[in-house]
Amino acid sequence: MKTNDRDEGDGAVYLREDECFEDLQRGGRRIIQKSAGFRFGMDAVLLSGFARVRPGERVLDLGTGTGVIPILLEAKTQGGHFTGLEILADMADMAARSVACNGLREKIHIVRGDLREAGRLFGAASFDVVTSNPPYMDGGRGLMSPAAARAAARHEILCTFEDVARETAKVLKTGGRFYLVHRPRRLPELIETMRRYRLEPKRLRTVHPFAGKEANMVLIEAVHGGGPQLRIEAPAVIFREPGVYTDEIREIYGR
Amino acid sequence: MKTNDRDEGDGAVYLREDECFEDLQRGGRRIIQKSAGFRFGMDAVLLSGFARVRPGERVLDLGTGTGVIPILLEAKTQGGHFTGLEILADMADMAARSVACNGLREKIHIVRGDLREAGRLFGAASFDVVTSNPPYMDGGRGLMSPAAARAAARHEILCTFEDVARETAKVLKTGGRFYLVHRPRRLPELIETMRRYRLEPKRLRTVHPFAGKEANMVLIEAVHGGGPQLRIEAPAVIFREPGVYTDEIREIYGR
Repeated sequence: MKTNDRDEGDGAVYLREDECFEDLQRGGRRIIQKSAGFRFGMDAVLLSGFARVRPGERVLDLGTGTGVIPILLEAKTQGGHFTGLEILADMADMAARSVACNGLREKIHIVRGDLREAGRLFGAASFDVVTSNPPYMDGGRGLMSPAAARAAARHEILCTFEDVARETAKVLKTGGRFYLVHRPRRLPELIETMRRYRLEPKRLRTVHPFAGKEANMVLIEAVHGGGPQLRIEAPAVIFREPGVYTDEIREIYGR
Repeated sequence: MKTNDRDEGDGAVYLREDECFEDLQRGGRRIIQKSAGFRFGMDAVLLSGFARVRPGERVLDLGTGTGVIPILLEAKTQGGHFTGLEILADMADMAARSVACNGLREKIHIVRGDLREAGRLFGAASFDVVTSNPPYMDGGRGLMSPAAARAAARHEILCTFEDVARETAKVLKTGGRFYLVHRPRRLPELIETMRRYRLEPKRLRTVHPFAGKEANMVLIEAVHGGGPQLRIEAPAVIFREPGVYTDEIREIYGR
């Protein structure tokens, strides 16, 4: 279902030597990724399938990386405007070029900046929806090489989940929605931290690699200032058999 | 698979007019219930399937009602001793007669008392495992008749979840396990309350009436003084089709 009407920006976009295009299988959207480095994953795609954006709403993605979440949400919703905030210069530049190559500069704005400053950057109550696929590591877990330990520590320095929750609560209107993908093992801490910032979990969906297996991701919708009442949806299952997606994932993932 | 070696206590047990026996379909165990009043439900049965009791361990069931949880756990585990605490005199009496009619007076002790006093009644760190299927209502929810509202308020007065967590933390050894069945909608509050009493959620299982439907129960294992790391297990599904249990539930429920 490719369309060509989004390709008018292509001419303006350059690709570095270590980058490649990836087809998002949705309305002809493409995204620039590092050939060998970080690539967007199933988690971002699942989050874009879980999030609900109403017509005209303003959406912020905290730590947008390649920009895959706003680009997918722009394709599947009627949201009014999307902002992706990214601290790393080369990622932010790559995301901005992905936006341009899809002809979406009017709808999606990539901002280079620190999510710990989001409240100051964008102002209070400036968004209807916030999404985030933050780093999962909390720094002190498992066996790590000294280099990996430094990298993980740096992740903790770049942002903790507490930073994400605090800034989300600042920029989100009362009644606004926060969509998060994270790891099951940190769920109790995530819930506690969100509630401390009046982000009340309202929908939870567990994601399991196969039916009958433990969850390896959780998707959470929290409402800013909402009353306590959680619904746990039917679980998502990724693979019907090794290498074969379930129908639902095929639908979300588009391949 | 009835056995007769447990029937020696039958002669000592009387049945009131408004009571009946129910076969637990497990080792010949039976339980006395009110014909028209509260009957044990799927939640108690699922909790007894979820809980892990090691050989010789001492187990306390807080708010044991008919005593179904200790009676089922005694049948399926090699736990050393089981105590059921129940505040309502007629329930405690009924549970004690159920224990007697199964010839289990040596293994299961029904205590009439207030769970808010469990720490004082049993002493600190006196159990390896605590189970509870507490009242789900938090008193102020939904449309209620004045009579029902009084009843719900009484439930809140009899015990809140905070009481359950606080007393559990008192009577449980460090490293001891707490098993809870409750409603999904209160999960965030349950997690927060447990953690406040150093009951760290380690295993979570959602229970769905049908595949593809929202969860209507959650099963939680928390470890007293445990480190934070939750595993979310594959979900349990009750019915394969209306009126027909899935194989797993047939196995747990025995019918």
